[in-house]
Amino acid sequence: MSDRFTGERFTLAIDAMGGDHAPEIVLHGLEIAAERHPGARFLVVGDESRIAPMLRQLRRAAGICTIRHAPDAIGNDMKPTAALRLRGASMRVAIDAVASGEAAGVVSAGNTGALLTLAKIVIKTLPGIDRPAMAAIAPSARGDVVMLDLGANVVCDARNLVEFAVMGDVFARTVLGLPAPSIGLLNVGSEELKGDDRVRDAAEVLRASPLAAQFRGFVEGHDLTAGTTDVIVTDGFTGNVALKTAEGALKLVGDLLRMVFRSSLTARLAYLLARPALERLREWLDPRRYNGAVMLGLNGVVVKSHGGTDAEGFAHAIDVAMDMVVHRFNDRIREGLARLAAPGAGQGNGPDARLAVVP
Amino acid sequence: MSDRFTGERFTLAIDAMGGDHAPEIVLHGLEIAAERHPGARFLVVGDESRIAPMLRQLRRAAGICTIRHAPDAIGNDMKPTAALRLRGASMRVAIDAVASGEAAGVVSAGNTGALLTLAKIVIKTLPGIDRPAMAAIAPSARGDVVMLDLGANVVCDARNLVEFAVMGDVFARTVLGLPAPSIGLLNVGSEELKGDDRVRDAAEVLRASPLAAQFRGFVEGHDLTAGTTDVIVTDGFTGNVALKTAEGALKLVGDLLRMVFRSSLTARLAYLLARPALERLREWLDPRRYNGAVMLGLNGVVVKSHGGTDAEGFAHAIDVAMDMVVHRFNDRIREGLARLAAPGAGQGNGPDARLAVVP
Repeated sequence: MSDRFTGERFTLAIDAMGGDHAPEIVLHGLEIAAERHPGARFLVVGDESRIAPMLRQLRRAAGICTIRHAPDAIGNDMKPTAALRLRGASMRVAIDAVASGEAAGVVSAGNTGALLTLAKIVIKTLPGIDRPAMAAIAPSARGDVVMLDLGANVVCDARNLVEFAVMGDVFARTVLGLPAPSIGLLNVGSEELKGDDRVRDAAEVLRASPLAAQFRGFVEGHDLTAGTTDVIVTDGFTGNVALKTAEGALKLVGDLLRMVFRSSLTARLAYLLARPALERLREWLDPRRYNGAVMLGLNGVVVKSHGGTDAEGFAHAIDVAMDMVVHRFNDRIREGLARLAAPGAGQGNGPDARLAVVP
Repeated sequence: MSDRFTGERFTLAIDAMGGDHAPEIVLHGLEIAAERHPGARFLVVGDESRIAPMLRQLRRAAGICTIRHAPDAIGNDMKPTAALRLRGASMRVAIDAVASGEAAGVVSAGNTGALLTLAKIVIKTLPGIDRPAMAAIAPSARGDVVMLDLGANVVCDARNLVEFAVMGDVFARTVLGLPAPSIGLLNVGSEELKGDDRVRDAAEVLRASPLAAQFRGFVEGHDLTAGTTDVIVTDGFTGNVALKTAEGALKLVGDLLRMVFRSSLTARLAYLLARPALERLREWLDPRRYNGAVMLGLNGVVVKSHGGTDAEGFAHAIDVAMDMVVHRFNDRIREGLARLAAPGAGQGNGPDARLAVVP
């Protein structure tokens, strides 16, 4: 895909061997993506002897993909430390292409822990960011919501939470196209005194920051699906549990509805009558539409696809990566951090005064 | 209600002034409860001039309720420290009745923070319990699941999590009637190395404890609605967020389904056809059926009803309290703690050796 302002063409590195049904699903995902992003280039990394014959069958993808052979693959159960040593792994070679500047970003459906660790060590963290975070988009009653962190940092301090807010703000502007996304800090209650020191300190910094006008204070678990704010900031432990809990609850109701509509002949007839509307609902809540968790705060775009997704889901993860690349996500993160650190920003005490309250 | 073994009659103290529609909802809840628990006694605490005329209209409740006048009420926004000074508040007088032994337990739909603080200070913590926890029952694909802590302790250490497991086990035996409930520790992944020191240390202690045979290791957010284990243990911050997230997700789907079935004439017809099955689903997920969060680890039974519930929901909170009182929940907690501390329990290193690994 080419940038409409500069005409520059972007390359994404694709880990062809990650995920439950690799490389088939990945390549079929690329075929879908090739139609949506005909100006993009994909560097497809993996076992050439398996990828090449498949790619020849894919008319559109074949024209914009280059294969790079990688002899190894990182298994789903491999520990990050072991993955680090496997320099010939498809995921590693794809990440190396981002570090070298050959590719603007990488998409992988492989081992999450390995991807996080490799990306942090090889691509490195953006200057001014203490810890990268994982973000994703989820459906709510009032439109899409960005949530972060989703598990990159199981232990966070107030400073991390503030940085997540900065990154979440830019992500919502970039990928959701919102001019001034509202931001909430996840807590056990909405009153100022609720929660632990971490969230109270982070809220204090945000209230005095350039994000103050967008910051809505504390939100609670139910605000995720209510869509009370566009961005929900939390630590990686809580965010991971909350997102999986929401997914689980949606799945439970889906399963129960299937049972309901199979429970009698009348119910089957009802299903047939309501089918168009129910299908729209199903499509709207379709996990594939929300596939693609993004690692924010690195010197390159890193998108993690769900390992069990299908070609459509993988193509969606590529959409997210392309969105971030084309809209120069990282340049905007740098601007956001500079604004936060600029003297006179927020209530005017300068960056040190403001960040000093963060332990 | 009388204990079927001893014939003893139990009294519950009821905070008549707590909740959004007090005292009306509370008194109508008592009328429903009076039918279910004709042998129980209720000490109804609040503004006598408002309660007495209402109670006279309620045939069943009138017979088993005693009114105790309390001049004050604790507002929903009152801070716990302010609530502590209000010795004439209905919640306080009801809690005092538990502390004095006059009542076996208390049910309130009032201010959660005030109830937690007052109960801890006035009723006091059971010997051997570091911190009381809040537990509730939630629906899952495989039956009811007990989750704790739900917000009594926003910061927890490994020792707290182990105690929550002990209390959750007894609660599931007592209220769900399970002979050997399975127990999971909430984490960001199921592998042993996942998470922070807290959950890993707690898991290590549980694996070497008398609960080892019931302990299934780490569970994730989606396991709550999947019903992977009967008890899910977590800290109060994560538990509060997870439960509210699940409630929010269920509400979102419910709202969307209502929209679907109103979206066309055909869809309305479909609703009429599927109505009996959908009604069963709605009843099954009815929040009122799950009303009544329980404070575990105190020298008395303390049940918090949702402030916005109706009479049926309040009656359910009374059911939970009666279950705990009749099945002598606290005696069984004491037994559970004694087993955990007994030399030779678990892998035989004695309590100090095992708890020593907990920071």
